[in-house]
Amino acid sequence: FDRDLCWRTEARLLPVVCHSSNNFKVTRKALEEAYAKAVEANISVKGLLLTNPSNPLGTILDRDTLREAMSFINEKNIHLICDEIYAATVFRQPDFISIAEIIEEDQEYNRNLVHIIYSLSKDMGFPGFRVGIVYSYNDAVVECGRKMSSFGLVSSQTQYLIASMLSDDQFIGKFLLESAGRLATRHNDFTDGLRQVGIKCLNGNAGLFLWMDLRGLLIDSTVEAETALWQMIINDVKLNVSPGSSFHCSEPGWFRVCIANMNEETTKVALARIREFVLRNGNKPNRKEKCGQSDLRLRLSFRRIDDVLRSPCIMSPHSPIPQSPLVRTRT
Amino acid sequence: FDRDLCWRTEARLLPVVCHSSNNFKVTRKALEEAYAKAVEANISVKGLLLTNPSNPLGTILDRDTLREAMSFINEKNIHLICDEIYAATVFRQPDFISIAEIIEEDQEYNRNLVHIIYSLSKDMGFPGFRVGIVYSYNDAVVECGRKMSSFGLVSSQTQYLIASMLSDDQFIGKFLLESAGRLATRHNDFTDGLRQVGIKCLNGNAGLFLWMDLRGLLIDSTVEAETALWQMIINDVKLNVSPGSSFHCSEPGWFRVCIANMNEETTKVALARIREFVLRNGNKPNRKEKCGQSDLRLRLSFRRIDDVLRSPCIMSPHSPIPQSPLVRTRT
Repeated sequence: FDRDLCWRTEARLLPVVCHSSNNFKVTRKALEEAYAKAVEANISVKGLLLTNPSNPLGTILDRDTLREAMSFINEKNIHLICDEIYAATVFRQPDFISIAEIIEEDQEYNRNLVHIIYSLSKDMGFPGFRVGIVYSYNDAVVECGRKMSSFGLVSSQTQYLIASMLSDDQFIGKFLLESAGRLATRHNDFTDGLRQVGIKCLNGNAGLFLWMDLRGLLIDSTVEAETALWQMIINDVKLNVSPGSSFHCSEPGWFRVCIANMNEETTKVALARIREFVLRNGNKPNRKEKCGQSDLRLRLSFRRIDDVLRSPCIMSPHSPIPQSPLVRTRT
Repeated sequence: FDRDLCWRTEARLLPVVCHSSNNFKVTRKALEEAYAKAVEANISVKGLLLTNPSNPLGTILDRDTLREAMSFINEKNIHLICDEIYAATVFRQPDFISIAEIIEEDQEYNRNLVHIIYSLSKDMGFPGFRVGIVYSYNDAVVECGRKMSSFGLVSSQTQYLIASMLSDDQFIGKFLLESAGRLATRHNDFTDGLRQVGIKCLNGNAGLFLWMDLRGLLIDSTVEAETALWQMIINDVKLNVSPGSSFHCSEPGWFRVCIANMNEETTKVALARIREFVLRNGNKPNRKEKCGQSDLRLRLSFRRIDDVLRSPCIMSPHSPIPQSPLVRTRT
């Protein structure tokens, strides 16, 4: 969200720090801590931003978490922006719960504080349509959105195409079912393959990616080590994954793998490469024990990567230019 | 431009007052007067906005006028925004001259002050594509535009369609030639028809409209009388024309007629209605002499129009919602 929210505004994003110990759950404690930290730094908190299902975790937010978030923002009188862009990518139980449902349950919540954002990019796989939706309970926000949108309207032909597509309930139903089924297959294939070489993933059930635990491959538990590992994966293994630090993850060693754009064959190639990489570099719980060859490899990698890094739009994990989620495994 | 430029900003638009006596030419005197007036009112002038070919006049800006404008903005060190959205609608000599040509002639001009805007809406007749272009000589403006546009991108399918269309030089050449030819025919038919009932138009050679002189039909030379006449034309004659006051024209009695969306038959119906209206209301140079029937008609019209005015998006000449340029002549 860094570029989406900070480019045009003077807004700052502060992470709500979550931990692997409870599967990165957004707890009330984590919310309060983030809030207290902001207050301490003399930052006026305007809102809470949640992605449900979560990117990069690939998990949904449960009812309790959503209720906690609603109570929290009501008490603090701040806004809640709920990004539900992956709502229809849930491929396994538990089901997706929209913040809209939570609001219905309790009339005490201040609806003026709640804004849902959505797009056809992920669920329908139509990023090229550039169709975004703001569903706000706040009239002022809707009115402002209406005026702003007059400068970036969706073209008539796109509107026409989308209208006829979305009004075909049968097609949409089949499409989403098929899409979820394929995501489940790809997710299972990939997590199985990773498990066979000792790599665990967070137990996900939604989204277009999985949250891979490579802490065991780090030289030490730092962002620098994570970045070094990321550069090796990009350059040597030639897989385009995203390091946790680019999502403000506080525990080094987590990586997001996009699985949605791969076919079966590409999946096999990707898994074979990961397997080879893990075998070559050892699959020990702590890389500190091995230094010789690995350090040499890291140094070599750095030098080779420095050249490539000169086109930063492709190679930086923090690049403002969107990267293709495709894991590029073709040789 | 009121809604385009003032909705999102705190900018104010001040008219450069032009006169029918010299065919509404934008003179250095007019520019200086507008500037002096702004300074007097303690308004900091940031730029000059020109439409070339002009909307609503249907005329192009000549080389001298463009040079004057360039000198003026350079001296004052303010920006020039040149709206060239009707560039390819010129259907008769003299030819269109872009501000880009003027800049090339004199290297002394400060290019950082010049910004050209364009769109496919008018020349190509594709408003539905929602494709706008900013061609600025100022890197900061281009960079800002690039960042802003990431929130309102043109859909891929539209980009694809436009790219293949615009790269077909033969098609585009034929299309624009045919379009200009049709505009010329429609313009001639309409001005001839109006002339036959004693209505003169500004001598235009571009754009999708003509600038019609109905000063002779006004009860007196006021904006109120112009608005009353406009309401009669809308309600009784059922032609959708735009009063000069909605373009900040300082002389009451001028009206913009959009001619581009009419076929031959519709043109005939429109002209027949205008003819009947003029005959009914008399075609005297000054309406002050006749009062009886006309006043009654005006009162009647007002009452009937008041009802309609409750849907202001359709009926107000100053409505922020775009009106169809189509002259609705169907019964």
